[in-house]
Amino acid sequence: MGFTDRHLLGIESLSPAAITEILDLADSYVDFNRQPARHADALAGATQINMFFEASTRTQASFELAGKRLGADVMNMAMQASSLKKGETLIDTATTLNAMGPDLLVVRHPHSGAVNLLAEKVTCAVLNAGDGRHEHPTQALLDALTIRRAKGRLHRLSVAICGDIAHSRVARSNILLLNRMESRIRLIAPPTLLPAGIEAFGVEVFEDMEEGLRDVDVVMMLRLQKERMDGGFVPSEREYYHRYGLDHDKLAFAKSDAIVMHPGPMNRGVEIDGTLADDINRSVIREQVEMGVAVRMAAMHLLARNWRAATAEATA
Amino acid sequence: MGFTDRHLLGIESLSPAAITEILDLADSYVDFNRQPARHADALAGATQINMFFEASTRTQASFELAGKRLGADVMNMAMQASSLKKGETLIDTATTLNAMGPDLLVVRHPHSGAVNLLAEKVTCAVLNAGDGRHEHPTQALLDALTIRRAKGRLHRLSVAICGDIAHSRVARSNILLLNRMESRIRLIAPPTLLPAGIEAFGVEVFEDMEEGLRDVDVVMMLRLQKERMDGGFVPSEREYYHRYGLDHDKLAFAKSDAIVMHPGPMNRGVEIDGTLADDINRSVIREQVEMGVAVRMAAMHLLARNWRAATAEATA
Amino acid sequence: MGFTDRHLLGIESLSPAAITEILDLADSYVDFNRQPARHADALAGATQINMFFEASTRTQASFELAGKRLGADVMNMAMQASSLKKGETLIDTATTLNAMGPDLLVVRHPHSGAVNLLAEKVTCAVLNAGDGRHEHPTQALLDALTIRRAKGRLHRLSVAICGDIAHSRVARSNILLLNRMESRIRLIAPPTLLPAGIEAFGVEVFEDMEEGLRDVDVVMMLRLQKERMDGGFVPSEREYYHRYGLDHDKLAFAKSDAIVMHPGPMNRGVEIDGTLADDINRSVIREQVEMGVAVRMAAMHLLARNWRAATAEATA
Repeated sequence: MGFTDRHLLGIESLSPAAITEILDLADSYVDFNRQPARHADALAGATQINMFFEASTRTQASFELAGKRLGADVMNMAMQASSLKKGETLIDTATTLNAMGPDLLVVRHPHSGAVNLLAEKVTCAVLNAGDGRHEHPTQALLDALTIRRAKGRLHRLSVAICGDIAHSRVARSNILLLNRMESRIRLIAPPTLLPAGIEAFGVEVFEDMEEGLRDVDVVMMLRLQKERMDGGFVPSEREYYHRYGLDHDKLAFAKSDAIVMHPGPMNRGVEIDGTLADDINRSVIREQVEMGVAVRMAAMHLLARNWRAATAEATA
Repeated sequence: MGFTDRHLLGIESLSPAAITEILDLADSYVDFNRQPARHADALAGATQINMFFEASTRTQASFELAGKRLGADVMNMAMQASSLKKGETLIDTATTLNAMGPDLLVVRHPHSGAVNLLAEKVTCAVLNAGDGRHEHPTQALLDALTIRRAKGRLHRLSVAICGDIAHSRVARSNILLLNRMESRIRLIAPPTLLPAGIEAFGVEVFEDMEEGLRDVDVVMMLRLQKERMDGGFVPSEREYYHRYGLDHDKLAFAKSDAIVMHPGPMNRGVEIDGTLADDINRSVIREQVEMGVAVRMAAMHLLARNWRAATAEATA
Repeated sequence: MGFTDRHLLGIESLSPAAITEILDLADSYVDFNRQPARHADALAGATQINMFFEASTRTQASFELAGKRLGADVMNMAMQASSLKKGETLIDTATTLNAMGPDLLVVRHPHSGAVNLLAEKVTCAVLNAGDGRHEHPTQALLDALTIRRAKGRLHRLSVAICGDIAHSRVARSNILLLNRMESRIRLIAPPTLLPAGIEAFGVEVFEDMEEGLRDVDVVMMLRLQKERMDGGFVPSEREYYHRYGLDHDKLAFAKSDAIVMHPGPMNRGVEIDGTLADDINRSVIREQVEMGVAVRMAAMHLLARNWRAATAEATA
């Protein structure tokens, strides 16, 4: 049994077999995307609507390209959070769009759980492109694909996730996925940027980069989510970089072939040294972007397969 | 003779046969749209430009999806009313776009008559997506399709249109269409929201919901167009809802199988009770959205047929 | 040898044979575009990203239509100059998009040289849609196509370029192209709107319209680029129109069959009299817009051919 769900709302509900099916298909799309002219029709005749209630140029672009390369009709809706009053209007907007007959809604929303709520109200497939501090499943899947291609496997690796864990849906989805695939996870962050009770997720917690990076295979840096630190502690960038910013010196504590990752967009000189970010011997940050398009193609392709199977069953 | 015009600027110029031809084709597109993967090429190779001088997320989305499902190349132009100075610049913009060789311009404009003026200046087909208080023909057509599917016919029905008639192009286009199709129209509104001389359109006018709704088959609620009430009377929402907002109690004055319509977006608790709006035994508001895509596909399909016929004639 | 380059960054690097190849192919696309339904697949399966760091509705629309008519997947990125800090971020943005695997980036940027810099950092083809005061090659090519169709040739013509030369990449690219094609160029402008040392480009310079327009075949008016006159001299519109605005009276100094051009958008009553702009016996301003789509189709078609040839060679 691979990925048989109707929606892709989070990593939490995915089995190892489902994750593997998505990654395997994505792998084939990497080669596909590198050809100069490419034709695919997994989504031909299908309508994909991108509803981004939080602006994100790069993620929306990745989903738009992924859909178009599979032959979908892609429509971007400019949803301004300010024009929406409470949940009711979110649901009104979603059910109105649903009545136009899309096959797939790709949704980003600033509130945790908003995408799950929306998925209950519509008849089409829903793909979560990030909801509050909750989940961002395609980011975790593209990170997994990047790691698997660099390290040859996903199990029995030691992965450090460093920085602003508390505000990061990227961290949350990655922890869920790496746990499920039997890798060991180390979180490195100042206590103020760690969510309470995180140890229950089966992770080791460190305050110090030297200790935390010891012998890891993968170093995932996170973006400082200043826009989500409402009223709470905001570290000074200089102090933060001194203690938690990744550079070649701190990287030396990890394994000698450890790779460096960042979900982007980077604050150079805050979370990561610019030279290290561009060092193609260590950094796989550009590959992460490339894997992003391939993983989104695979996820949407499989959602289309699942909804066609469900339709065929319903009419049989 | 069905719909043979070069443009679709309003209901006023349409014969009953033209209206019927558009609705019949739209009916077939409803089934088409409900399939999970659909291919049509009525607009393949054609260029559709959406010029919305007034923002309207849902109407623009409906036209964009309709065009893409027919295979058109669709381009959205963000026209900001503020950057346009007077009619001359509207015409400059339109003739510039026309020089790029589109087949179809879909235009929404805040000034009544602006779309007709524009249609005189370009060589491509023009579809009016709403101009000031003048016309909104595809809205009236989608309402007609919704009624026809619910009631089995368009003639000899009794239809109440309730609320802000004075500022509504939706009301105006619906009155023209229902008149032409031989239904009886009852307008229900406070005198301040009724245009002068409206009785000349062959309608009955009521101030009171109880009287006006008596034995009607269809209840069409209108949106309060506060943005168009420049300097004039603006009712309090609470008072308005008490007298004119539709709920199950007021609906009881209509026929027991009367359907409830609203062009959206709704102000819940102002024009209509939220529970009634969501009551799928009475409300066809979601169907209206679905019919919108189908009617726009049909209208654009027939405009393309007409322009091809005209081209073939010109070169024969 | 025609146009064999990997990028189209400016006219400066184009040979007469390269220019002629682009114009010849564009000529065939003019006829193609005039058909009511058209299919082409020169860019089928290719991804085109429009990155406009400077808003330009009409130029972006022209590139979008050109790409879609050739079958490309076209994505518009809303790049706001304000959100970009320094060159580094421009490069980060470009390399991120490049990692998504586009075949073609169409870039407009307010800084001269920014597009060339970007082209060094990416693996796909780059087309300059205007950078600062530097180049705007497709504008010069569409102007050349317009002239060639009106006059039957590009060599041994006398062309006047009038107005704000100093701030105009359009003037610069046109001077380079017309020089290369062996036409004579006359610049007419107040000294404050002429760049220093411009005579080195092999042009004649005039301050007076009567002298400058004497016996020319083509009159190219330029837009007053007030937005680029940072702190410098800004002429009064009335005074400017009196001395340099083109009307039928001043046009009488040119040859009796001289054509009138303007890259748009026009300031009517500032650079040009509105009646003359609309006089289809003299003005080819609408044709310039039409030629714009054709020239962009040709340029992108040839860039695609070149990158496919390079790929075939690399893998042979």
